[in-house]
Amino acid sequence: MKVAILAEGQFAPATAKTAIGVLRYAPLEVVAVVDSTRAGKDAADCVGVGAGVPVVATVDEAMARGASVLLIGTAAAGGRIPDAFRPGLARALDRGATVWNGLHERVLADPALAAAAKRGGANVRELREPPADLPIGGHRSRREGARVVLTVGSDAAVGKMTASLEIVAALRRAGERAEFVATGQTGIAIAGQGIAVDAVVADFIAGAAELMVCDAAERADWVVVEGQGSLTHPGFSGVTLGLLHGAAPDVMVLCHEAMRYGVKGYGDRQPLRTLREYVRIYEDAASWRRPPGYPPARVVAVALNTADVSEDLASATIAAASHETGLPAADPIREGPSGADRIAQALREAVPA
Amino acid sequence: MKVAILAEGQFAPATAKTAIGVLRYAPLEVVAVVDSTRAGKDAADCVGVGAGVPVVATVDEAMARGASVLLIGTAAAGGRIPDAFRPGLARALDRGATVWNGLHERVLADPALAAAAKRGGANVRELREPPADLPIGGHRSRREGARVVLTVGSDAAVGKMTASLEIVAALRRAGERAEFVATGQTGIAIAGQGIAVDAVVADFIAGAAELMVCDAAERADWVVVEGQGSLTHPGFSGVTLGLLHGAAPDVMVLCHEAMRYGVKGYGDRQPLRTLREYVRIYEDAASWRRPPGYPPARVVAVALNTADVSEDLASATIAAASHETGLPAADPIREGPSGADRIAQALREAVPA
Repeated sequence: MKVAILAEGQFAPATAKTAIGVLRYAPLEVVAVVDSTRAGKDAADCVGVGAGVPVVATVDEAMARGASVLLIGTAAAGGRIPDAFRPGLARALDRGATVWNGLHERVLADPALAAAAKRGGANVRELREPPADLPIGGHRSRREGARVVLTVGSDAAVGKMTASLEIVAALRRAGERAEFVATGQTGIAIAGQGIAVDAVVADFIAGAAELMVCDAAERADWVVVEGQGSLTHPGFSGVTLGLLHGAAPDVMVLCHEAMRYGVKGYGDRQPLRTLREYVRIYEDAASWRRPPGYPPARVVAVALNTADVSEDLASATIAAASHETGLPAADPIREGPSGADRIAQALREAVPA
Repeated sequence: MKVAILAEGQFAPATAKTAIGVLRYAPLEVVAVVDSTRAGKDAADCVGVGAGVPVVATVDEAMARGASVLLIGTAAAGGRIPDAFRPGLARALDRGATVWNGLHERVLADPALAAAAKRGGANVRELREPPADLPIGGHRSRREGARVVLTVGSDAAVGKMTASLEIVAALRRAGERAEFVATGQTGIAIAGQGIAVDAVVADFIAGAAELMVCDAAERADWVVVEGQGSLTHPGFSGVTLGLLHGAAPDVMVLCHEAMRYGVKGYGDRQPLRTLREYVRIYEDAASWRRPPGYPPARVVAVALNTADVSEDLASATIAAASHETGLPAADPIREGPSGADRIAQALREAVPA
C-alpha cells in the first residue's frame, strides 16, 4: 500500500505536524507529498525529514506514483478541513483512493466529498473516530508489574508524541518489552491503532486512556503513553487531565520546546510557566487521582525539542533544563539515540522491575 | 405542555437526580412520574419534592393525565438508557409523545425505539446533543464588569446544580442581574437551554463553557455556572478542568455532600480529600489558566448538601466546614433562602461591582 500526504500550502514545520510524524516514524511507503506551492522540492528540504520523497503539485501526480491512500497531513486546532484541501480530496475520492483523515471534521460530512466518494466507490478512514461503548475511567486496574510512562507538556505541539516514540525505541534497545499507546491522530496513523482522546465524548477521556493502557499492559512491561495538550492550555487542559488520570502513570516525562514562551496560538496572552512549575503542576494533578498511600507519580526526565535553535543554544537549553529541574534532560531527536537512552535510563531507575 | 417523568424502578433520591431537579426547579407542569414499583405514592414521599405529583405505573396512565412529553428522569454514570425504560419509551413514542433524553445514549440509536418513533410520528429532544461548530477555548473575552461564579465539588452528584440555582435566586433577591448557565442534562431541562459539557467532543469542553459564559455575560452582571464532576474524580476530572478553564470564574463555591467520604461509585478505592485540600486544589487549577498579574480565583464559600443527615448533624457539619475552611458555609436547601443569601453575600463581598 502506497501513501501520499496532502499538505496543500502547509508543508512546513509549523503546520504539517502529522505529515512530519508519519514521514519520520510510520511503517508506510510514502510516495509523495501534495503541496503545489512547494512542488519539485524534496520533503526533507521542506520539513527536515522524508529525504527522497518528492513534493508534487497534484493528487493525480501522487496517484501516478502509485498512491492508493491520501493522508491529510496537517492538524490545525479546531480540526476543520482546510478549504484548500477539498479539491484534492475530491479528486482522490473520485478516483477511488482511500482518504485517511485525522481532523475533527469528518470527510463525508462535506456533501461534495461524499458525492465524490460515492462516484469513485472510495473509502474514508477517520483516525479520530472513537470506538463505541467506551467505559468511564477508574474502574479497571492494569496488570501488576507493568509500568506506565506518560509524556506531559508545557504546551500542545511541543514533541510529546516524538518523545514517546523515541523512549519506546530506547527502552527496546535496553532489552525491555515496551509499547507505544497512541492518543492522537498522528500517533494513530503511525501505530495503526489507538484512540484520539481529544475526539471522544468528554465523559470518556479517562476511560479511553485506561482502556488502552490496560490492554497494552497485558502485552508489555513498559507502556509509554503519548500525552496531549497541557494542563495550562486554555482550550485543551481538560483532555490533558482526563488523559493523566486515565493513564495513571507511574512516571512522567516533561516535554518542552526551546524558545516557546507562550501558549501556541494565543500570542502573549498566555505565557508558559517555568519548567519547575510544570513539574509541580503535573505531580500535583497526578496525585489527585491516587488514593492515599500510593507512591506519587513523579516527573523523572525532561525531553526538549530544540529543532528551531542553534547547536550551541540547544546544548545550553538542555543543560539549563536539567539544572532547573534537577532531572536528566535530552533532545531525543537532535542528540540521536543517546538522548532517549538517557531518558530511558532515568525511567528504569525511577521504577525498577 | 404537560410533562411526565420516566424513572421506572429508580424513583429514589440516590438514582433520580434529573427527576428531582426538574420537580424542584423546572417551570414545567409535571403531571406524573412513571415507576411501577412505587405506583400510587406521591412524588414527595419518594424523593422529598414534587408534592401533589402522582407516581403512576405506566406511560399510558401518564398520558391519560395529559402528558405530551416524557422526560427520562435518571442519569447514571456512563449514560446508557436502562433496559427497564425501553418499553415505556417505546409506548410513548408509539403514541406520538415527545421524549426528552439527557443520557449519552441516543434514543433513536435503539432500532426498536426508532421504529416506534416512526410509527407514532414522534420527536426526540436530545438534551445532551451539542451544537455544531463549537470553538476552542481561550479566544474570547467576556464583557468587562460581568462576574462569573463556578460551583465546584468534592465529587460528582453533591449538589452543584442545586447550589447554583439557589445562588442565582439569592443574587436576584439582592437586586442583582444574575443568570444560571446550565452545563448538564438536568440543568438544561430546567433552564431550557445550555450545553452538556460532558457530552461535547473532548477538545471543545472549555470552548463550550466559554461560549455560554460570554453570551450570558452580555445579559447579566452575575453569571453562575453549574459545575460538573470533580478534579479528583477518576472518570470525570477532565470535564471538570475543561469547564473550570473555559468558564474562568472570578470566584468559586465549593459543594460537598455531608457523609460522602469516597468518590460515588468507586467504593473505598477513592477516598475524598478534606475541604481545605479541595479549596487549594481548585484555586491552584484555576490559576493555571490565568496569566500572571490577574487576580487569583478564590473559593469564597462552601455549599453543603445535608439532605441525608439529622438536623443536629447538619448544623455541626455546616459549622465544621466553615471552621475548617475559614469560609461561610450553608446548606441552601435545608436552611431555606437564608442559606443561599449567606453565600451570595460572600460572593458580593469577594468581587464588589
